[in-house]
Amino acid sequence: KLYGYTGHTLAKMLVTVLTGIITGLFAVALTKTVGAITEWKLDVLAKTYEKDAPARTFVSFLLFWLIGSCLVTLATAIVQYWAPASAGGGVTLVMAYLNGNHVPNLLRFSTLISKFVGTVCAVSSGLPMGPEGPMVHIGACVASVITYMECKCLDGGIFNIFTNCFGRRKEFNIKEKLKILDEIVSDSDHREFVSAGVSAGISAAFGAPVGGVLFSMEEACSFWSRKTAWRCFIAATLSTFTIQLLNRSAQHGMIAFSNLNPMENKDWLLQLPFLIVNAGMAGLLGAAFNSLRMWLWKVRAVKSRHLLRILEVIGLVFLTSLVGHFFGWAAGQCKPFPDDWLNEGYGIRFNCEEGHYNDIATLFLSSQHHTIIKLFSVGHDDEISDVTKFVPAFSVGGLALFTTIYLGLFSIGAGLAIPGGLFMPSILLGASWGCFWGIVLRLWLPKWNIMPGLYAILGGTSMLAGVFRSAISLVVLVVEGTRGIDYLFGVILSVMMSNWVAHHIHHDGVYESELERIGNVYMLRDEPPHRLFTLTAEAIMATGVYGFRTIEPLSRILQVMRTTTHNGFPVFADEDSEEGGVSEAPSSQALVNFGTSSSNADVNGAASKVDPLSGRLEGLILRSQLLVLLQRRHFCDASGRPIGRDYSEQQELELETEMRTFFRHYFTHARYVSATAQPLDELKLDGVHAGSTTLDLSSLYIDLRPYMNRSPLTIRKDCSAARAHQVFINLGLRHLLVVDAHNHVVGMITRKDLDHAAGHGWWRISHMAEPPRNK
Amino acid sequence: KLYGYTGHTLAKMLVTVLTGIITGLFAVALTKTVGAITEWKLDVLAKTYEKDAPARTFVSFLLFWLIGSCLVTLATAIVQYWAPASAGGGVTLVMAYLNGNHVPNLLRFSTLISKFVGTVCAVSSGLPMGPEGPMVHIGACVASVITYMECKCLDGGIFNIFTNCFGRRKEFNIKEKLKILDEIVSDSDHREFVSAGVSAGISAAFGAPVGGVLFSMEEACSFWSRKTAWRCFIAATLSTFTIQLLNRSAQHGMIAFSNLNPMENKDWLLQLPFLIVNAGMAGLLGAAFNSLRMWLWKVRAVKSRHLLRILEVIGLVFLTSLVGHFFGWAAGQCKPFPDDWLNEGYGIRFNCEEGHYNDIATLFLSSQHHTIIKLFSVGHDDEISDVTKFVPAFSVGGLALFTTIYLGLFSIGAGLAIPGGLFMPSILLGASWGCFWGIVLRLWLPKWNIMPGLYAILGGTSMLAGVFRSAISLVVLVVEGTRGIDYLFGVILSVMMSNWVAHHIHHDGVYESELERIGNVYMLRDEPPHRLFTLTAEAIMATGVYGFRTIEPLSRILQVMRTTTHNGFPVFADEDSEEGGVSEAPSSQALVNFGTSSSNADVNGAASKVDPLSGRLEGLILRSQLLVLLQRRHFCDASGRPIGRDYSEQQELELETEMRTFFRHYFTHARYVSATAQPLDELKLDGVHAGSTTLDLSSLYIDLRPYMNRSPLTIRKDCSAARAHQVFINLGLRHLLVVDAHNHVVGMITRKDLDHAAGHGWWRISHMAEPPRNK
Repeated sequence: KLYGYTGHTLAKMLVTVLTGIITGLFAVALTKTVGAITEWKLDVLAKTYEKDAPARTFVSFLLFWLIGSCLVTLATAIVQYWAPASAGGGVTLVMAYLNGNHVPNLLRFSTLISKFVGTVCAVSSGLPMGPEGPMVHIGACVASVITYMECKCLDGGIFNIFTNCFGRRKEFNIKEKLKILDEIVSDSDHREFVSAGVSAGISAAFGAPVGGVLFSMEEACSFWSRKTAWRCFIAATLSTFTIQLLNRSAQHGMIAFSNLNPMENKDWLLQLPFLIVNAGMAGLLGAAFNSLRMWLWKVRAVKSRHLLRILEVIGLVFLTSLVGHFFGWAAGQCKPFPDDWLNEGYGIRFNCEEGHYNDIATLFLSSQHHTIIKLFSVGHDDEISDVTKFVPAFSVGGLALFTTIYLGLFSIGAGLAIPGGLFMPSILLGASWGCFWGIVLRLWLPKWNIMPGLYAILGGTSMLAGVFRSAISLVVLVVEGTRGIDYLFGVILSVMMSNWVAHHIHHDGVYESELERIGNVYMLRDEPPHRLFTLTAEAIMATGVYGFRTIEPLSRILQVMRTTTHNGFPVFADEDSEEGGVSEAPSSQALVNFGTSSSNADVNGAASKVDPLSGRLEGLILRSQLLVLLQRRHFCDASGRPIGRDYSEQQELELETEMRTFFRHYFTHARYVSATAQPLDELKLDGVHAGSTTLDLSSLYIDLRPYMNRSPLTIRKDCSAARAHQVFINLGLRHLLVVDAHNHVVGMITRKDLDHAAGHGWWRISHMAEPPRNK
Repeated sequence: KLYGYTGHTLAKMLVTVLTGIITGLFAVALTKTVGAITEWKLDVLAKTYEKDAPARTFVSFLLFWLIGSCLVTLATAIVQYWAPASAGGGVTLVMAYLNGNHVPNLLRFSTLISKFVGTVCAVSSGLPMGPEGPMVHIGACVASVITYMECKCLDGGIFNIFTNCFGRRKEFNIKEKLKILDEIVSDSDHREFVSAGVSAGISAAFGAPVGGVLFSMEEACSFWSRKTAWRCFIAATLSTFTIQLLNRSAQHGMIAFSNLNPMENKDWLLQLPFLIVNAGMAGLLGAAFNSLRMWLWKVRAVKSRHLLRILEVIGLVFLTSLVGHFFGWAAGQCKPFPDDWLNEGYGIRFNCEEGHYNDIATLFLSSQHHTIIKLFSVGHDDEISDVTKFVPAFSVGGLALFTTIYLGLFSIGAGLAIPGGLFMPSILLGASWGCFWGIVLRLWLPKWNIMPGLYAILGGTSMLAGVFRSAISLVVLVVEGTRGIDYLFGVILSVMMSNWVAHHIHHDGVYESELERIGNVYMLRDEPPHRLFTLTAEAIMATGVYGFRTIEPLSRILQVMRTTTHNGFPVFADEDSEEGGVSEAPSSQALVNFGTSSSNADVNGAASKVDPLSGRLEGLILRSQLLVLLQRRHFCDASGRPIGRDYSEQQELELETEMRTFFRHYFTHARYVSATAQPLDELKLDGVHAGSTTLDLSSLYIDLRPYMNRSPLTIRKDCSAARAHQVFINLGLRHLLVVDAHNHVVGMITRKDLDHAAGHGWWRISHMAEPPRNK
């Protein structure tokens, strides 16, 4: 201890700091790699135009497709064959994890690597995908890998590669160190670190530390506290600072633009109708994207068909290339290069003469990041005074065409088996609409102080709001990312307007829709769905709860554990209960009654039927605790006297530690395994050896009293289901027991039950959820 | 209904919008009035310097004191004799209200007016007080007054003045309208509106809409939801926009500065140690202020001594005037006016010759707002290249002197009986320290790119962090307020550093310290205090819970209500219980046992002793519900048949509506009255008339079953107290029943109990809380 700081605090701080810095490094690596590959690709394409061959457009088309195909084949193959959890943006699943779901393999090292490589390939191949969503997932993975790595390497476990790096640390006082680390990776700590990773990821992607924290709070996290906030804040600041140190162009935000022309209040008021139309239309686009995307899910390839999934991605590259080249050739206008474009290597010459570029081909085929910046700065470069000479860098028709077609490509792209986020394409789509609208206005009202670039920024923002339905975090992200604090009002107006419009077209944001589609993830919202307000807890609870008496025969425990997949079991007062101190004496006649509620117990297989036990609630015991007790052969006889083991305080402490850290040690990335019969088989309880004597299995009991949770939270069966939802969510429960007035258990509410009850209510309007599966 | 919008939604939206706009108008009026008075005062002072009389300094000193005294006497008199709730900053009490406390008169119309007038007087009299804290309170009052006003005026109640304005509305469909408004002012709705008012207030004060929302979230609100966030967002945006429309100088933030010289990453790294020292020292200053302020409470005048309180404030004006004039005369340096100062009317000539100003007198005596802006822009005006010619506007010694003395004045000022906030003086103090440090560094290292103005900004920010201990909201407020987004990293670094340093000197922020001092407000934190982790619910609960049977004699109900001040009563299962459907039959012998836990029941007066009733819990009934039942003469006989009343569905609905809106109709601003015997006396139950027959009081019963909450949340007595705290806070409870394993009530936990249990724990380290009083 040092000034109130223990090893815990320091270890946690170290994890937070490392998460921030390493996420920042990943972001830098991502940006640089994508930049290099894209530049190389465009160089290759540029060379084909120099030749005067008649089929140069066709050659360019083939080249674009070929290069793209190689890249995406690599990415999709990795995803399909190695790390399926890394497909898509990943934000949704991270949200589900932070909500309390166990998502298999989501935060493993392999997922991290696959996500990184896949994102590089996807973004640089020219698909309508961005690196922002994957950065969130990468941040979360980094946080998770760091926490588990440290422990594993000190345990000398799987991650032996890392053990060498930390070799020196291993010598000094490893036992002590281990104990500290044992404690820091509780579920809630881990969630905090993952939240910090999310903040670090998003802030690295946008160069916006405060926005990153707010994104984490508003969108990603279901549980938030002051401590989490500080952790996110530190990680986000460090990751942004890392990226700014290593990548000079990022110093003023990732999509910064210069030449700010501040607008007067008068102008804001005058242009208010135009701005509202701008935001409203972008909101419509966002909602249209969401709807289109949901509809396209019906025709996509099934997850398990590996080759089909790969072909799907290659098909999209083909489509992108085809569309870009065809419209560039058919409708593209040749314009002379502005001064700064050539230096920056932006603009695609295509079929134009030397010193000119084809605007449609440029929009479709060049790097999205660059295109966004160029759209944002349309109309900023020239002086406001020479209104007549305005020549936009992109033609009005070109922008309209691009907006329409890109919406389609984007909708197809979102959901393929390749890592890639929705932020960047959303911004690009919104910006191209805004720019179109701004240029139209500018040409129509040349005397007004209309900046198409501003409309592009606000269009991009509105599109994001329409797609994601976030509010404050989005405002801060955009303001920080563009450094356009003078346009704060426009940004706020756009976000509100677009949210409002989009909400009336498509009810949910993209994350909610996706969660709904996944189906086997139980995402619980902060506020109870409307449907629950008219139900009671009794109506939504699961019956067929299996319970134990305080001292239960081993045989029954084993049978229940084998035939059910429940993770929590209520413990009931025993007939010959030794619970003293209860002043009210009788009322023990009715304590145990068998078989009242075995109606829909989901018993697996053909195993023999066990009667669910019911009675007055005494406590709750978890499957993991039972597994530890079994593994330690912690048996007793019918009256609770220990058999075949000595009691020592040290042993008891170790037992409790093992119970606390059970999942971390045995089932970190595969918790669902613990509910199967497999761990029971591994225990080899058939010939039980305790010390030197062989014990008879049928005469053994387990005393649950010292280990059960003696005061589980309960609700009455006539309580409102909405209240049950509130209790469940606000206290972060996993099992909520439903009791009657006599404190007898009548059912249990779990995450699954709440999700089912909300079924077709609030956020499942589209009826598309698959039936839940137990993996 | 229109697109899913009901009258409710529209009425709520109207309230939100009005709150935003009116708060903005108040902010504009405040700024303009303060500006006008200050200007007039400085003009009067300036005239004295023009005469060449030998005692001109003395005359100026007297004039400053006199004008200030008149102003503050007015303000303090209003506060002391009319609206005591408007003293101080007000943020603390608003926080307490939003946490769930009832603070008498906090949000009344009189408080609003007194706060406004008082703040104008306090700020313009030259005291070290700012308008930001009061703006928060004003915003909250505006929100509250609007909600209650609408209802009252339509009821034709007290606010008859307003009835005339809304006369037209009264005609059309008043009954319908009333019902809608009845519902929107539930406690939680009202809290939402007050939260929105807080956001509007702070964002109007700083010109920072996002910052306002975040302040509301991070500091002020204990309950937060997506809906609240949107409401705050709308109100904050509207208030900021209102102020920017009416007050052109506020367009780019309230304390905006131009001439930004962005710093390179290299410079940030090089100056890192200096910045850390800057922030650390400012954090120390903040902690010192908090400690000094807490210590000074011991020597302040008692609240009830009106004249003494007024003299105290006049004394501080005297001190300010004396210090300013004495040091201006003794140590002030005469410097030539910079170009822009004369135009802006900034700078005090004092005893200097024409065209010069006295720097110390200027620091002490001019408007704080102006001084802050000047400090922030030191070193911005000149080019970085001519390093040798740097002549700061304030001398190093002057700034050091000012920092030291102002800390004292500020500490004395915080806690007087006059409205006034801590934000502005904190910024001024921090800025003067930062400016001092920056100028010292600049003179020491002339070759480095050191901007004292930047150090002043960061110093002010750090000081705020040290005083208030907020994080994200502060960063956003400062960045939005100063439009200095390029200095984001410095701001984040300063806030973190200063928080860390200040936390080690003085444990709590200024709000927490003040809440602790107030003593009779029970502020519960989100996270349970450490002390509760080692206690069980049984250890902290209040025993002596009075309960009723489901059908209870009227006489006992009246006796219990007269002799206790409890607000919630458990209802126990009756011996001849008609509750069917419970399958477990016996266990009714031990249901009712008297007098087991009447140990420390706080029975008031010499009334006859009533035995607390205990037994198996059936439900919970509130005092307000009982009052309604009594007022409606809702009696029955021993078997539950109604006496002297007919049953009709319409009546039942009205009864339930009255129960829901009980406090709004009868005890809006004085809820504590409902727990006294007064409302019972007013009911005149002695000769009970029901219809035309006079009934015998002793044969009457009340059937509680249809009205009680049938599924109150309970916890087991051996549950951890920390868990109880979590349940209480996260679900927003007011009564939490503690039961044993048989569902028999053994005690109850209320806000007071939790606060007492945390007593000398987490946030009450200083042992200064007065014993709680029941008002």
